[in-house]
Amino acid sequence: MHRIDNLQYANWSEKIFREMREGSVDAVHVTITYHENFRETVANVEKWNRWFERYPDLIFQGRIGDDVRRAKKEGRTAIFFGFQNPSPIEDDIGLVEICHTLGARFMQLTYNNQSLLATGCYEAEDTGVTRMGKQVIKEMNRVGLVIDMSHSAERSTLEAMEVSERPIAITHANPSFWHSALRNKSDDVLKALGSSGGMLGFSVYPHHLKDGTNCTLESFCEMIAKTADLMGIENIGIGTDLCQDQPDSIVEWMRVGRWTKEIDYGEGSASNAGFPQMPSWFNGNLDFDNIERGLLEAGLSEAEVAGVMGENWLRFYDKNFGPA
Amino acid sequence: MHRIDNLQYANWSEKIFREMREGSVDAVHVTITYHENFRETVANVEKWNRWFERYPDLIFQGRIGDDVRRAKKEGRTAIFFGFQNPSPIEDDIGLVEICHTLGARFMQLTYNNQSLLATGCYEAEDTGVTRMGKQVIKEMNRVGLVIDMSHSAERSTLEAMEVSERPIAITHANPSFWHSALRNKSDDVLKALGSSGGMLGFSVYPHHLKDGTNCTLESFCEMIAKTADLMGIENIGIGTDLCQDQPDSIVEWMRVGRWTKEIDYGEGSASNAGFPQMPSWFNGNLDFDNIERGLLEAGLSEAEVAGVMGENWLRFYDKNFGPA
Repeated sequence: MHRIDNLQYANWSEKIFREMREGSVDAVHVTITYHENFRETVANVEKWNRWFERYPDLIFQGRIGDDVRRAKKEGRTAIFFGFQNPSPIEDDIGLVEICHTLGARFMQLTYNNQSLLATGCYEAEDTGVTRMGKQVIKEMNRVGLVIDMSHSAERSTLEAMEVSERPIAITHANPSFWHSALRNKSDDVLKALGSSGGMLGFSVYPHHLKDGTNCTLESFCEMIAKTADLMGIENIGIGTDLCQDQPDSIVEWMRVGRWTKEIDYGEGSASNAGFPQMPSWFNGNLDFDNIERGLLEAGLSEAEVAGVMGENWLRFYDKNFGPA
Repeated sequence: MHRIDNLQYANWSEKIFREMREGSVDAVHVTITYHENFRETVANVEKWNRWFERYPDLIFQGRIGDDVRRAKKEGRTAIFFGFQNPSPIEDDIGLVEICHTLGARFMQLTYNNQSLLATGCYEAEDTGVTRMGKQVIKEMNRVGLVIDMSHSAERSTLEAMEVSERPIAITHANPSFWHSALRNKSDDVLKALGSSGGMLGFSVYPHHLKDGTNCTLESFCEMIAKTADLMGIENIGIGTDLCQDQPDSIVEWMRVGRWTKEIDYGEGSASNAGFPQMPSWFNGNLDFDNIERGLLEAGLSEAEVAGVMGENWLRFYDKNFGPA
């Protein structure tokens, strides 16, 4: 059984890389871009190259599904790159292939705002996929860069699935039937995602959880079991959205970027502006055993739990990380 | 009387700068960006700086209305910079002030496609002004960078006027009551533009003209007279969209930029892909006398003609090219 966390954005350190190994995490999809343009994204790849050079016994760059199997065999963690914003391709469709060559495997068509490609979930209106968006989806399909709609608005998400000839992903979100939040997803989106072979990664970020920081492991795992019934047990996995050891200045950067001179609190509020406290049962890479145990207690079979904890993402990686 | 052409994008040369003088054109708003990012836009400013250095007897950079008066007095042409796309500010609101300092005086919130700020007229759907768009309009208002909606879709254009606390411009377009085209503007837009103190610049680009290349001077000038009735004689001027001496590769670049790998014909078609032939009565800066004569023949008074040929834009420059 392989264990995959399909979304983290920690304040990376040797400590965290060691915890990935101690927690038997074979692969992590890490966000390397929130608002960065192409050149700034390349600088972030350079940073990762230095970490790969410095900690070769702990981590290496993943590019295909087999790298997850290799990671498990060698007792390391494969790191896959992803973007939470299409800002790295700027206005240049040719950068889709370049970014894939550099290792990007997931790219959100939007962060919270309108992008050149589609609409983010914080906009008042949603036009769906734009003219450039349609062209870029075709190019992402060609090279095998997975479309991620975690932060996109509903219509854009449904249209992305229609336009895309390959399955898409929602790497880190939860169903809105469980906790209604702008970032969580409707039954319509989840059903369409499942029936098209797409994947949902369940988030442990408190603003996406019922009762926030006080969310119980039982409630979280029951929600997973219900979502499996809704969209298919093979179409779900984990995408914790873990932002371990990040200072609050980072969540402000995520929300505000460079697009406004005012404060935007996003999912938070003036009185709760920073990173929320994580639930007691999940603070980092050492805690995946808790989720695994919770899923068994929620009635999932061992094979089903293995699927959710990593095998489903691994099968998705195998199919979608290169030309069809 | 001052003569202003509020939109040109020629293949600049000494010949054209000399024609500006021979044609008594005191000021031209030149497009320096179609798809360029900030750094590329700076490179275009550098090119203009070399032209200013080389032809000081013909041209100089305009920054305020008085530069038009100075140009007339000194027998030169003041060149004002503008962008047909918000690409120079990328995703960075701080670049609004930087671009104004470098001399930008007009910025379109969109070219033909969806931008980070609003929707272009070639998109199927129009969401209006985005979250970032609202912030950027406020900042443009503050520094005195004029909002130009020439290529934007209807709802976005109306919303830009609502959100903006200062008048906006449509620098180069015609009314759709005269010639129905995606780029031309509805009565609703023109009325709102006039009543908010905004300006429309009439385009001579054949795709915006009734009967295209075969449009008559009489028809063009009658249309101007009717538009004056609709939105106010003080709110109209000229913005020819003259692309003198440009090769057809340039119109393809305008339409396609870097956003698609396919050909997009924009206002043209596969059988008519290049720049269209100009009408016989307007081929460049030597031909403004024709328009002036046509306007008198269409029944405008001498004072009204002076307004359309430059005084209206000059008054707009005086009010809008710096902090309120």
